[in-house]
Amino acid sequence: MKVWPMKFLLCGVFIAAFSVNVAAFEALPDQAPVPKDNPMSKAKIELGKQLFFDPRLSIDGTVSCNSCHNVMAGGTDSRSTSVGVNGQRGGRNAPTVWNSAFLTVQFWDGRAATLEDQAKGPPLNPIEMGMASAQAVEDRLKAIPGYVSQFRAVFGKKNAVTYDNMAKAIAAYERTLITPNSAFDRFIKGDKKALTAQQQKGMKLFESIGCIACHSGANFAGPMNLAMGEGFYQKFPTYPNKYDEKYKFSKENGRFDVTKETSDKNLWRVQTLRNIAVTAPYFHNGAVKTLHEAVRVMAKSQLNKDLNDHQVNDLVAFLNSLTGEFPKQTLPRLPDTAFSSLVGSEK
Amino acid sequence: MKVWPMKFLLCGVFIAAFSVNVAAFEALPDQAPVPKDNPMSKAKIELGKQLFFDPRLSIDGTVSCNSCHNVMAGGTDSRSTSVGVNGQRGGRNAPTVWNSAFLTVQFWDGRAATLEDQAKGPPLNPIEMGMASAQAVEDRLKAIPGYVSQFRAVFGKKNAVTYDNMAKAIAAYERTLITPNSAFDRFIKGDKKALTAQQQKGMKLFESIGCIACHSGANFAGPMNLAMGEGFYQKFPTYPNKYDEKYKFSKENGRFDVTKETSDKNLWRVQTLRNIAVTAPYFHNGAVKTLHEAVRVMAKSQLNKDLNDHQVNDLVAFLNSLTGEFPKQTLPRLPDTAFSSLVGSEK
Repeated sequence: MKVWPMKFLLCGVFIAAFSVNVAAFEALPDQAPVPKDNPMSKAKIELGKQLFFDPRLSIDGTVSCNSCHNVMAGGTDSRSTSVGVNGQRGGRNAPTVWNSAFLTVQFWDGRAATLEDQAKGPPLNPIEMGMASAQAVEDRLKAIPGYVSQFRAVFGKKNAVTYDNMAKAIAAYERTLITPNSAFDRFIKGDKKALTAQQQKGMKLFESIGCIACHSGANFAGPMNLAMGEGFYQKFPTYPNKYDEKYKFSKENGRFDVTKETSDKNLWRVQTLRNIAVTAPYFHNGAVKTLHEAVRVMAKSQLNKDLNDHQVNDLVAFLNSLTGEFPKQTLPRLPDTAFSSLVGSEK
Repeated sequence: MKVWPMKFLLCGVFIAAFSVNVAAFEALPDQAPVPKDNPMSKAKIELGKQLFFDPRLSIDGTVSCNSCHNVMAGGTDSRSTSVGVNGQRGGRNAPTVWNSAFLTVQFWDGRAATLEDQAKGPPLNPIEMGMASAQAVEDRLKAIPGYVSQFRAVFGKKNAVTYDNMAKAIAAYERTLITPNSAFDRFIKGDKKALTAQQQKGMKLFESIGCIACHSGANFAGPMNLAMGEGFYQKFPTYPNKYDEKYKFSKENGRFDVTKETSDKNLWRVQTLRNIAVTAPYFHNGAVKTLHEAVRVMAKSQLNKDLNDHQVNDLVAFLNSLTGEFPKQTLPRLPDTAFSSLVGSEK
């Protein structure tokens, strides 16, 4: 029988303790799924980008999709809840638009099945963009000649400028907002130096304590093969705790507000953890400012675990590895309001 | 003696009537003047672009320079007066940021001598971006590690993150916002087909009735060789008229508010006409929605002339030729707020 020297044995223990189960994780795909009734095209994506950045989709010309889902930042607005027209405050934290194309349901409470449906919400929400009706948005778009010709080029000459087509173009643009090649993805694909030792410890912990049970799949937001509109929800908090008393999470009903079913009370869509380090503050009410605190909150609320500082730091280190590359884009040029302005719509 | 056939004579009259005095006009330079104490560099321009687009320069994270001076549009916000934090309305129309580097004085009333001085105004204006002090802005910037390293790279390691340096970076970016190669510029440079016959008629009229007396120089905003801080102002309206009754222009004091000198009452900086067709609405209070009406107002108010519809249309056609090419730019990526958010600053 061969006797292994002590240093080899210790090394083996070290590897066993720290090696991560790569098979439990998935890299982010380069392409998002595209619905059959809204195929991608270069012209449609470009139109969608313009619409996404155009504050004229709001009643007073001050709020665009990008105002709250800031593509130049982590796809959100650094605020607990967003600000809409006339200084009004929204009720929930703006989710990131980056990688939202991988979600099978949209909004915190899953009330929209697709990106197309989602895009039709904010313009007509009185505290977000405040337009009176889909017709009012169409009228606004029809008054901008550059949009009329672009809608026609993309959607055909007949009845091109519609609210539905606006949403289709915006969704097409959003399907390009993917952040590949994070340190985590490079690690998963075989670059073993892509993650630090601490990040690998955090990754292992992420799996062993059970974070991965819900934050699974390439987008860390649950199964990605559900039918569009079928969401992956969890009760939050599952275990009542001191954090809920402090941050008032359960004050809101979540999915219950959509379905009115008692079993949906305090159910929320499982959020993506992609780019989570750059999308503070956290949770549906944006009450938690730091990622460290968010990790403590989740461990206690969903797994009934009190983490020590080392564990929190390791998990945060791992979560930092999920920040991807934000592809460079050209600034859209918005088509001109023809010889006129939004004065008529101003308050 | 040779007798010219009638058709040649008529043609000669036509040319004499319509030919324009090209020598009275100037093309837009490709480069803006750069002050000695703020030389341009690629890194400084990139930093300035980020700051220009960063809503974290406002107290609640909702308003950036770009909110009112929208680079994706004509450099303004399509509104009569702008909206700042908490839904507050400003008092004056946002001037375009495009080609502002050619102006020898900034703001409608010339209260800032340079782009650097101008950039220091809005962040601390309580109804615009609402920051409490220069120190508060510096503290905000110092809390964003990406900015700290960029400021150091641009301005040196010692005391790099200052309000003054922020303004210098923003000004450096703004000096790149030039729209060359308009139809007018191509015409001036020798492409005689660049302007339509109607635009040439308008150009001639622009000179003959006297618009050019004030809207002179390459930027159509008066002399460009004045010392920085020396503005070119005119009383508006010079001739009291029905438009002033309707649009209440003289309700505001203009330059008088800065100097308190009686002779400065109702004096305003002469505005650029570059890209005027895409920067409605018009005048310091943004009360006029269309360019056609703005032309009528100016002719009556400054030249005491009532133009007929043909003249207005010709002038508008000419003014349309002043819309330049807006150079494509990449969207800046804003450095991340470190593990945190603006929650503490929210109302």
